[in-house]
Amino acid sequence: MFMHGEIITIGNELISGRTPDLNGWYAAGRLTASGLRVTGIATVGDDPEEVTKALQGAVQKSGFVIVTGGLGSTEDDMTNEIVADALNRSLCLDKQMFEQIKSYVAARGIEMSPSLEKMAWMPKGSKILNPNGNVCGFSLVEDEVRLYFLPGVPDQMRYLMDRYVLPEILVHAKTLPVLRQRILKLYGLNEPGIAEILKDLPRTNENILFGFYPHFPENHITISLRGQDERTVMKELDRAEEEVRALLGPYIFAAGVESMEEVVGEKLRNKGLTISVAESCTGGLIGNLLTNASGSSNYFMGGMLVYSNQSKMDLLNVSQEAIEQNGAVSDRTVREMAEGVKARLGTDTGLAVTGIAGPEGGSKEKPVGTVHIGLSTEGETFSGQYRFWGTRKQIKINTAMMALDWVRRCLNGDPFLPGL
Amino acid sequence: MFMHGEIITIGNELISGRTPDLNGWYAAGRLTASGLRVTGIATVGDDPEEVTKALQGAVQKSGFVIVTGGLGSTEDDMTNEIVADALNRSLCLDKQMFEQIKSYVAARGIEMSPSLEKMAWMPKGSKILNPNGNVCGFSLVEDEVRLYFLPGVPDQMRYLMDRYVLPEILVHAKTLPVLRQRILKLYGLNEPGIAEILKDLPRTNENILFGFYPHFPENHITISLRGQDERTVMKELDRAEEEVRALLGPYIFAAGVESMEEVVGEKLRNKGLTISVAESCTGGLIGNLLTNASGSSNYFMGGMLVYSNQSKMDLLNVSQEAIEQNGAVSDRTVREMAEGVKARLGTDTGLAVTGIAGPEGGSKEKPVGTVHIGLSTEGETFSGQYRFWGTRKQIKINTAMMALDWVRRCLNGDPFLPGL
Repeated sequence: MFMHGEIITIGNELISGRTPDLNGWYAAGRLTASGLRVTGIATVGDDPEEVTKALQGAVQKSGFVIVTGGLGSTEDDMTNEIVADALNRSLCLDKQMFEQIKSYVAARGIEMSPSLEKMAWMPKGSKILNPNGNVCGFSLVEDEVRLYFLPGVPDQMRYLMDRYVLPEILVHAKTLPVLRQRILKLYGLNEPGIAEILKDLPRTNENILFGFYPHFPENHITISLRGQDERTVMKELDRAEEEVRALLGPYIFAAGVESMEEVVGEKLRNKGLTISVAESCTGGLIGNLLTNASGSSNYFMGGMLVYSNQSKMDLLNVSQEAIEQNGAVSDRTVREMAEGVKARLGTDTGLAVTGIAGPEGGSKEKPVGTVHIGLSTEGETFSGQYRFWGTRKQIKINTAMMALDWVRRCLNGDPFLPGL
Repeated sequence: MFMHGEIITIGNELISGRTPDLNGWYAAGRLTASGLRVTGIATVGDDPEEVTKALQGAVQKSGFVIVTGGLGSTEDDMTNEIVADALNRSLCLDKQMFEQIKSYVAARGIEMSPSLEKMAWMPKGSKILNPNGNVCGFSLVEDEVRLYFLPGVPDQMRYLMDRYVLPEILVHAKTLPVLRQRILKLYGLNEPGIAEILKDLPRTNENILFGFYPHFPENHITISLRGQDERTVMKELDRAEEEVRALLGPYIFAAGVESMEEVVGEKLRNKGLTISVAESCTGGLIGNLLTNASGSSNYFMGGMLVYSNQSKMDLLNVSQEAIEQNGAVSDRTVREMAEGVKARLGTDTGLAVTGIAGPEGGSKEKPVGTVHIGLSTEGETFSGQYRFWGTRKQIKINTAMMALDWVRRCLNGDPFLPGL
């Protein structure tokens, strides 16, 4: 049985929604990445009763408890007293802590105050985490449960967590030493679609954990495994990844933390190709994404935001005929846009989109969400129509993602995702 | 005594530290701003036992419980079953929900699957929150405690929270009947700067609650008051808003939910002016923001993404001299870009940015974060230099926001924010 524990984050700013709980998130992430299991995060206000309940509850069912917040010297920080009460311990003046505060006070040229002195009165049996530093935190052991009390200031909390808390917990945790995780990022299949396909996944190793996380417009699958040695764990993960890839192949655009635009950029750079964009309904989103990748100036030359019909003709040489006969949202127009921007910017590839992002502008033939994508490469120009759902922003995001996915699939030699 | 309640957020991604709990934060903020008290936020994994414990604990001590996550159709979403078990209710096929899923499935041209059908089996006594929409959520009343079950997808959760959950809780909470809130959105002042200025705010009405929320790159101030009648409440809020405006005036770009791009768009439309953009380091972000506003085709004509020096000269007639003598990141180049795009697109206004978004490309004279903004109007061309901090994305976002703020301030007759 792996060691598991809980996190308690304290602060009125958290339960009033003033600040998101990034301490709980950080601690959970570090503990999980170290192979420990967090069963819950309880967030309570600076309220003795609530803190006591949370503490007493956590001690009953955990191997370790991380508490953040409430260790400062301001009026609403009273963790020391509450902890002492909740665990039936007396408060003792900790000499080491008192010296630490005194030297801190002296160094800053401020005066000792009762509220500062209060910080040195700690629950009996406490151990200072960081004896020679300025960051206050302490630990306690209660019925074999390891409790850690950390400040709420994120930098201080993270410092003590990484430097003292994690190493100490790991010494006492009886876990298999190696935990490895893969993340596969998918685009172009919705949640139920993926769930349906993954039902056929062979479960050759029961210990492998699969996780599933929608991140609009992407979906992420995580594969994780714990084991005795790195080599075996990696081999098992390789096999599991292969099994997922066999089912979901071309939908997987990245393995790891890379974004779609980074994957596309890397492929362009590796092949020594340049790209330019002609954007109508996305208004600059594709260029914005491409330039989020550091070093994008190596392959992204620029582009045209051709929001009006006039600008499509003026800047990209789209023919008046195409716009009048086929419409600004049509295969013909998007092909001319892609070819036009490729020629105008002198790039190897031209990527173009035109569509109706809504909420106005739709018609029966071309409802809101109708989008055409065009991709002009050295040898050929491709085009296709899609119909996306959602708000204006969601339609823009899906249009940009699908356009980038076209570049990715084209460079991979995979077929494009079918549209209408 | 105001009604108080708890929030339960469910998801392995939360207790493993993969995702910070922004749903708990959002719900807590909205409830608190409405005058309700949140006593705790419990975060648990997709684990029936933990969810059950959290639910049963919350029901015993709260007036309301908000549960987010676990409502989707994938294998690890099982809230319906767990809720039914935890509250000793049977699962019934909800016809309304089933019809809703069927029409969703039909509209998208996908097939009905067992996992989709599972979503329609709901705990007995459940009430769908949003009967005619595509967003699934339901409510239950157990021993006079109101329970709300919302999806974990942030957009969907926020939509149901604002539109259905909050109004319904407020009807049942025994509070003064009228609660009104103002949101003032600020750009260009950091958190300590605002706090320092707000120290001088006269507190003429002790019942008025001020809230302060950083939303990178913006800062939001909320002013809320609860009272007996609408007229008095609004009058008091008007006075408070005036007092804040007297101190923070031109930094406030919007009062309410409007975004910077919507405010700028509205001002352009009201004055009958058109705009075009020339973007270097932002790569399309300004155009993307401007076109997020519905109806932006009335004033946004398009623009040029001039990422390379060559494209600045080819597409915008920036002089070789400017680039060679002053550099691509300079006042002279950005002025020529703004004037060039205005002329090329035939608009009343031309907005241009050029800068070093990093992490590479900085020098001693022009470190990463150095940005020049240019704005060419009918009568005059303005330019200025800024130095922004942060990651590549943060520098891009601040550049785009500052550029849009220039347009807003210019149309208002306010001075631009000082740069370097």
